[in-house]
Amino acid sequence: MKAKILAVLGVTAATAALAAEPVVPYPEGYRDWHHVKSMVIEEGHPLFASFGGIHHIYANDKAMKGYRGKNFPDGSVIIFDLLEAVHDGNAVTEGSRKVVGVMRKDAKQFKATGGWGFEGFGGGDPAKRVVGANAASACFACHQPKKAQDYTFSRLRD
Amino acid sequence: MKAKILAVLGVTAATAALAAEPVVPYPEGYRDWHHVKSMVIEEGHPLFASFGGIHHIYANDKAMKGYRGKNFPDGSVIIFDLLEAVHDGNAVTEGSRKVVGVMRKDAKQFKATGGWGFEGFGGGDPAKRVVGANAASACFACHQPKKAQDYTFSRLRD
Repeated sequence: MKAKILAVLGVTAATAALAAEPVVPYPEGYRDWHHVKSMVIEEGHPLFASFGGIHHIYANDKAMKGYRGKNFPDGSVIIFDLLEAVHDGNAVTEGSRKVVGVMRKDAKQFKATGGWGFEGFGGGDPAKRVVGANAASACFACHQPKKAQDYTFSRLRD
Repeated sequence: MKAKILAVLGVTAATAALAAEPVVPYPEGYRDWHHVKSMVIEEGHPLFASFGGIHHIYANDKAMKGYRGKNFPDGSVIIFDLLEAVHDGNAVTEGSRKVVGVMRKDAKQFKATGGWGFEGFGGGDPAKRVVGANAASACFACHQPKKAQDYTFSRLRD
């Protein structure tokens, strides 16, 4: 009987631990969201090692409200979709996907990192999480100076 | 009385002439359509003079059906959104808009050019039509070899 109770407590404790470390879900359907802007990062750029290639920023409807206003409401999701940049014949075309970066706003859940959860999906694979518990050092450290824009780098353009 | 009749006939003839030359409307709201793909065309590329810069392709819902099937249904609209490519600090960022190119499918109206109407809006200005009556030579001549893809160059990617 006692063992049974402990086993039940054990499961409960594990569940509680999971709930305390919120994860950023893979952003299903983001390719149909609003295309905010794009940029190519080339060899020699300080961010080339991490973000070399052509990237596109996408925003869901809540994030669009954030771009247009002062702050991003909970539920805002911004995507950094990074593809290989293939240089050939005086043109740059898109190659395979390197990573799908995600910022998800939840002021309470992600209080320690400016209210944003950060995750990266290697090769765009929902099963390959490349940030995990390292969001503070791997992502937020660079976003922190952008506090005036609610920790985002991108701005909306026409 | 005769003059009045002629005036009325005159107006009717003008209206008939206008109806015979269909125009491609400015694509309101296209920035919220599906972002299909992007490409940078650089100096030295054979299309640099006309299309140098970074361009994004957008498609409305009907055009998405066309990309997924064999032919594009009437009402399909595909956008070629061309921006200046600003090369600086080993990065390429987006500058001002050069042109908004439009392909609009209407098999009957645009029978002479593969069922597609073509127009370009200089600087993205709905009032600055840069193709007008020259669609056959200015646009369709290059698209014609792509008959197997219903005269489109772009293909859908993930």
